[in-house]
Amino acid sequence: MPELRKDPIIDRWVIISTERGKRPVFFVEEAPPAKAPMCPLCQGNENMTPPEVYSARQDGSPQNGPGWTLRVVPNKFPALRVEGNLDKEGIGLYDKMNGVGAHEVIIETPHHGETLSHMDIGGIQRVLVAYRARILDLIRDQRLKYIMVFKNQGSVAGASLDHSHSQLIALPIVPRRVVEEINGGLNYYKFKDRCVFCDIIAQEKEDNVRVVFENDKCIALSPYASRFPFETWILPKKHEPYFASFERMDDYFALAETLSTVLKKYDRVLNSPPYNYIIHTAPFGNGQVPHYHWHIEIIPRLTKMAGFEWGTGFYINPTPPEEATEYLKETQI
Amino acid sequence: MPELRKDPIIDRWVIISTERGKRPVFFVEEAPPAKAPMCPLCQGNENMTPPEVYSARQDGSPQNGPGWTLRVVPNKFPALRVEGNLDKEGIGLYDKMNGVGAHEVIIETPHHGETLSHMDIGGIQRVLVAYRARILDLIRDQRLKYIMVFKNQGSVAGASLDHSHSQLIALPIVPRRVVEEINGGLNYYKFKDRCVFCDIIAQEKEDNVRVVFENDKCIALSPYASRFPFETWILPKKHEPYFASFERMDDYFALAETLSTVLKKYDRVLNSPPYNYIIHTAPFGNGQVPHYHWHIEIIPRLTKMAGFEWGTGFYINPTPPEEATEYLKETQI
Repeated sequence: MPELRKDPIIDRWVIISTERGKRPVFFVEEAPPAKAPMCPLCQGNENMTPPEVYSARQDGSPQNGPGWTLRVVPNKFPALRVEGNLDKEGIGLYDKMNGVGAHEVIIETPHHGETLSHMDIGGIQRVLVAYRARILDLIRDQRLKYIMVFKNQGSVAGASLDHSHSQLIALPIVPRRVVEEINGGLNYYKFKDRCVFCDIIAQEKEDNVRVVFENDKCIALSPYASRFPFETWILPKKHEPYFASFERMDDYFALAETLSTVLKKYDRVLNSPPYNYIIHTAPFGNGQVPHYHWHIEIIPRLTKMAGFEWGTGFYINPTPPEEATEYLKETQI
Repeated sequence: MPELRKDPIIDRWVIISTERGKRPVFFVEEAPPAKAPMCPLCQGNENMTPPEVYSARQDGSPQNGPGWTLRVVPNKFPALRVEGNLDKEGIGLYDKMNGVGAHEVIIETPHHGETLSHMDIGGIQRVLVAYRARILDLIRDQRLKYIMVFKNQGSVAGASLDHSHSQLIALPIVPRRVVEEINGGLNYYKFKDRCVFCDIIAQEKEDNVRVVFENDKCIALSPYASRFPFETWILPKKHEPYFASFERMDDYFALAETLSTVLKKYDRVLNSPPYNYIIHTAPFGNGQVPHYHWHIEIIPRLTKMAGFEWGTGFYINPTPPEEATEYLKETQI
């Protein structure tokens, strides 16, 4: 059973894989990503993954067979396990609990080599709707406190499989940075009685030097204190704490259009860079959250993380966000 | 002038390089590290760096000429500038100040290709003593609040020059993670009236499954909630908040022996991995700090940082620290 261990100094949890006998990870060089036809995420290889928990498929096509446009399957090498109790425990001054949770893979396309930026908007909408469906299913499990949805595109960004996919990790704790962000929003709300993200959207529309793209529902911008060159955030224009709370399918279409536009512009300006994105949403079950506003943070992986950045949370960004915005806005897709 | 910008949601400052006209950073591929003899850090190329601010050299050898064993020079492409005022300013809901500070390079050896793990203990002691000397000089500047000393070994770890060096960045703010760690220690102290780091050392000596090395002054251990495979912390056994407060040279010798042992063991077990280390010390000028204990955190860069780790501060570590400790302890150097 994997273990969740808490740093005794700061409130940071780490998943430690405690299965002995597995060789520790030793080298920087990893195996190159699998190519079709041995790719477990390709159409025709459905038996290479655990059984699907969600799919979008042709009417009448059999589960776990071909005929799909999107599948969600449990991760074959999960960081967390669905079975078991949390068994919270102290060991001297240390704290741990069992690594209970879920770890799923969203296979975004049956076609090896196709990425989100190649897909039409309907295809990206299908991916976003799958995220929503899995979140709404998993939040019924009372042991789980938070669901992270993220994507690693390209091996430099941490993808171990070449075939386009995203991941979902459901956790029994709320990660520290999420708590921090929510508390940051709460402090602002207490002071101003307004959502800081709503205020940012208003100021960015006024300033108009960091807005990359917008449609009637969503806005994409380079954040004022961007940590990385060409960092981009996508936010819904209307206040909403939960990613999964968009009710209407055309809301996800507008979001898909925004995401598609940013990714296509990255491809042009930055030469199809590796990237990560992560969906920041309020933990579920909190009802009204006037101080938090869900959003997607996208980071192209253009520079190496240096030593002090993970140690201090302090970043040096060589590209001003206003300049990144200019490049992205000017580029035709 | 570079700019320090504050994230409006959480208390995170970022250095934004605002000099226009410089091309933005576009690609993952960086130029390969310079080789001698064009290496600006090599003996004989002293004129390729800004004038030295500290050196260890043969008696009578001229400043900025050959004859040195260690030099400290200002970074030629500094993230921060020594000149000017902070000029703190609000722009709507955003906050910024000028990027005032210092950015120095500690050239650890005149020999291209020699790294810390090849040096004798006296050589490493010289590096640590240089850190101390520069910190004690820079803390006299009232504008500065914190000094980060760190090392990127290898291009994967972020080093842009091949020649062995560390860096020092003096900042007008205390970075968020440092504040967090100090507050974590303070919370524990309020509850227990003891230093959490002192308690960790006591428990680790008792448990004896995560201690990699110790001598009479220092201890090296794999932290209980290690974020990364083979993460190692080095702490002084005696409570001390400030890295620069070791008074006696043999304290730095004991520290050098500990650092040398860990790095040599990394070389054997992990095949000379790229790594980062960072010195965590209390911000200066706070007098007695019974709740904080300086230490060095060392991270071999064996795995790629995945997308959700920077977004959530939540880590998945495939190697239990007890297993890493076993490998490191058993390895003869």
